[in-house]
Amino acid sequence: MSRMKLSLNTATVKRASLAESARLCAEHGITGIGPWRDVIAEAGGAKAARKLLDGHGLSVTSLCRGGFFTTPGGVDDTRRAIEEAAILGTGELVLVVGGLHPGSKDLPAARRIVAEALQRLAPHAAQHGVRLAIEPLHPMFCADRAVVSTLAQALDLAEPFAPQEVGVVVDTYHLWWDPTLFEQIARARGRISIYQVCDWVVPLPADMLLGRGHVGDGHIDFLPITDAVRKAGYDGYVEVEIFNQEIWDAPPDQTVATVKARWDLVGV
Amino acid sequence: MSRMKLSLNTATVKRASLAESARLCAEHGITGIGPWRDVIAEAGGAKAARKLLDGHGLSVTSLCRGGFFTTPGGVDDTRRAIEEAAILGTGELVLVVGGLHPGSKDLPAARRIVAEALQRLAPHAAQHGVRLAIEPLHPMFCADRAVVSTLAQALDLAEPFAPQEVGVVVDTYHLWWDPTLFEQIARARGRISIYQVCDWVVPLPADMLLGRGHVGDGHIDFLPITDAVRKAGYDGYVEVEIFNQEIWDAPPDQTVATVKARWDLVGV
Repeated sequence: MSRMKLSLNTATVKRASLAESARLCAEHGITGIGPWRDVIAEAGGAKAARKLLDGHGLSVTSLCRGGFFTTPGGVDDTRRAIEEAAILGTGELVLVVGGLHPGSKDLPAARRIVAEALQRLAPHAAQHGVRLAIEPLHPMFCADRAVVSTLAQALDLAEPFAPQEVGVVVDTYHLWWDPTLFEQIARARGRISIYQVCDWVVPLPADMLLGRGHVGDGHIDFLPITDAVRKAGYDGYVEVEIFNQEIWDAPPDQTVATVKARWDLVGV
Repeated sequence: MSRMKLSLNTATVKRASLAESARLCAEHGITGIGPWRDVIAEAGGAKAARKLLDGHGLSVTSLCRGGFFTTPGGVDDTRRAIEEAAILGTGELVLVVGGLHPGSKDLPAARRIVAEALQRLAPHAAQHGVRLAIEPLHPMFCADRAVVSTLAQALDLAEPFAPQEVGVVVDTYHLWWDPTLFEQIARARGRISIYQVCDWVVPLPADMLLGRGHVGDGHIDFLPITDAVRKAGYDGYVEVEIFNQEIWDAPPDQTVATVKARWDLVGV
């Protein structure tokens, strides 16, 4: 049985350039990288980035991110993200779908907009060999970042499409609390685009976007979740993606060393 | 058809004594009050409080709160809360079930403890004519306050018991994001112990416990939720329960006036 491998999501080392992140991966024996689009842009665009990452023998495990469909321009921007993903050589584009429309309280309407955006984008993505990976975000981000809050909901949205066209992101931080998580991970068979990990720490800081911890520093029991992901047939990369000001302020080399040191706790 | 009526949860006017809250209710034409136990204790205990509230013609719409079953002493404390609720003349005891055990990451175990606590407490509650009202808390409180995060989960826990023994709390703040909310409210027929309202405002403040807003100040669309609660057969009181430092710092009279002014937005 193949074993899942570690990938560094570039959000974890926010201060580092793509070149530095790639070098750190190589030095620490990490073979996968999950870049964000701003880092790709700063590195001179997708083509230059691809060359750089190829030079370090790195697999691009996903591209973060498209989406924000409830904001004007979200679909067009995601179209460009699909093209970038294809150039980077990753088959998975992570989608953060967006919150309520500005000024609106109509949650069902926002969710319909997301479903329609997937319809509009799926052919373009398929044409580029890129899967649209719907990421359910923690319910505390429902108003302003993602009206898709659970894996069940993401899978319902993915269902009208072929598994190779629309997938889902399983991120421990967003989903660990869900009492239906294990049955939904089983249901996600064939649709898991990427498995992302970081820990839930309390108290959350003032900016709740930045409350994520290194694996092992919080309250999440990773082993059963990883086991469920494996049993659902996933054997791809596991991205460590951590948003945390303190971790961002630390030297990137130290952060990557910690990521590596905690890898055993993920239970792959 | 009877119309739901407004009740003031004392947490909304945290600075006020029970006597002051009762007086404010009377002055603003509010006929229900949902007290917290600390306020009852400060007023000289349940008997004295009952006398005080009776003097203002106030119905006690629930008692907040028992629970915290994953902490030592939680069950015994809830036993006392049941007795207090009976003396106060309310049939509904709100339960915040507790988070993970200190030092534990075993979420399923914590949830089993909750189910067992309900088994142990249900006879005592029934004997006192008090219903155990399970309150699902927003998933962001799963680690430290309540391992019950959704209405579906609360209803699953309530199901082994008669509807008059174990009920559920529907609180807009905790549940508004849930894509299964409307079907679960329908399923809650006969088990809705109390309907609580306040709004979801972003950004959340540093202490995320205190991020709740007056009805109308945030992102929640109250009308369809209230409509679903009504269609599920609920025609009791609606408690306005707001945790917000700014609102707590305001004069209680002003807060109650705002609660009253926003009542139309709840859509009863």
